[in-house]
Amino acid sequence: MLNLTLNYAEISKALELFIRQEVTEPGFKKVVLGLSGGIDSALVAGLAARALGPENVLGVRMPYQTSSADSLSHAELVANTFKIKMETKSITSACDGYFSSDPDMNAQRKGNVMARMRMITLFDLSFRDSALVLGTSNKTELMLGYGTWYGDMASAINPIGDLYKTQIWELSRFIGVPEEVITKKPSADLWVGQTDEQEMGFSYPEADQILYHMIDLRKKDEEIVELGFSTDLVKKIRRMVIRSQYKRRMPVIAKLTTRAVGTDFLYPRDWYQQV
Amino acid sequence: MLNLTLNYAEISKALELFIRQEVTEPGFKKVVLGLSGGIDSALVAGLAARALGPENVLGVRMPYQTSSADSLSHAELVANTFKIKMETKSITSACDGYFSSDPDMNAQRKGNVMARMRMITLFDLSFRDSALVLGTSNKTELMLGYGTWYGDMASAINPIGDLYKTQIWELSRFIGVPEEVITKKPSADLWVGQTDEQEMGFSYPEADQILYHMIDLRKKDEEIVELGFSTDLVKKIRRMVIRSQYKRRMPVIAKLTTRAVGTDFLYPRDWYQQV
Repeated sequence: MLNLTLNYAEISKALELFIRQEVTEPGFKKVVLGLSGGIDSALVAGLAARALGPENVLGVRMPYQTSSADSLSHAELVANTFKIKMETKSITSACDGYFSSDPDMNAQRKGNVMARMRMITLFDLSFRDSALVLGTSNKTELMLGYGTWYGDMASAINPIGDLYKTQIWELSRFIGVPEEVITKKPSADLWVGQTDEQEMGFSYPEADQILYHMIDLRKKDEEIVELGFSTDLVKKIRRMVIRSQYKRRMPVIAKLTTRAVGTDFLYPRDWYQQV
Repeated sequence: MLNLTLNYAEISKALELFIRQEVTEPGFKKVVLGLSGGIDSALVAGLAARALGPENVLGVRMPYQTSSADSLSHAELVANTFKIKMETKSITSACDGYFSSDPDMNAQRKGNVMARMRMITLFDLSFRDSALVLGTSNKTELMLGYGTWYGDMASAINPIGDLYKTQIWELSRFIGVPEEVITKKPSADLWVGQTDEQEMGFSYPEADQILYHMIDLRKKDEEIVELGFSTDLVKKIRRMVIRSQYKRRMPVIAKLTTRAVGTDFLYPRDWYQQV
């Protein structure tokens, strides 16, 4: 097992600077993020409070009727810990309005609708408050595609998308995320009792080790198996990475001219700083 | 005025091939798209019907209670013309469920919620049917940022994103979009009587000429003004292009490692073809 621990004093400083620059350069002061009660959003809330001042950070609780009470109380604990503002907006009536049109929807379809309804809520509040939406997807989720496209994967800026889940745990401890939020089982809370690791069929420390060797060190599957991981698991993770690539790219636009969006017109989005 | 007319026999063939390849290579057969009753979705429906066979194309009408009756009948006319399947899913109850939480929402916020609710609907149906969502944003809208981020700008593949609106008109005539859909005033139909050109304050032919010189020919503002366009309009369009760049890029992820999503990990999404 490789040690994936980073220098968290340096990392947290870099991420605060990232948030401050990406928010203030286009002329914003405030951010909004979903507070699920989980560790990823807790970490982003803490980093944003340090970067912008807690009065400029709004955490939004967006329960559906089946969401666990723990999620709500953990979200409140996070808001209190970092002294950020908190607002609660239930997604129940909007989701039920959608679900009513099709009684046959399965749990996976409903989960995607819920994730996207939360996206709608965050972007609506960001417009109301002239704020930017902070993303809370970590590198493990992004690489595995374990998230809803145009749902929880949608944001304006994401400070933690290059940190694996095991690094999220360590950085969260470093910046003072409440211990009970750090130690509880990761869950998308899409149905009662769901945990990420049970649903995916492997643990985050395993996934992170395999992903680090596969992505960052560019090792072949056989080399990773030699380290002691099962062939099935390595292949499964490779497949998840490959099959979810579309979620990490913009929609493909048919290129016809010399300057097509997505193929050629690729200026950074703070390009306006230079004109 | 430059003539922006293209060889539409060639363009339509290229776009059919694009749709066929992008849909079938990842293993899909079917597509789904929103049928607004407007020209952009009509053109995409026609191209998709040619590319995949009309039985593999589902057009979805997604009215809100204030949507015009014309939108619905034009959408049906398009479906009948190209012999594709059609389904109607009202977004009223889901939107009203959302709107009920905040009586102060203005028309712009409501418009964004509606555009995103349609995105939710299309992606949900695409999951139900194992289909891909076709985008219908044209190059004029994409360059001006005249669309809702993660709403109508969200799709899996977009065949017409590199065609200006005036080219959309011509290609639509070429492939047989019904004349009344081609000639009616472009509108996002977000409130009664809305037209794009009135809302933006300039016409599509003007915008396309200016954009073509600005983007495709890389002309400076002064050079475009010399062609006979007003300084104010050229500056306004430049500002719209600059300010909407964020909508044409993925969320910015803080880069910490050697392979960060969005900065380094940029394989095409059909990269799996090669492994």
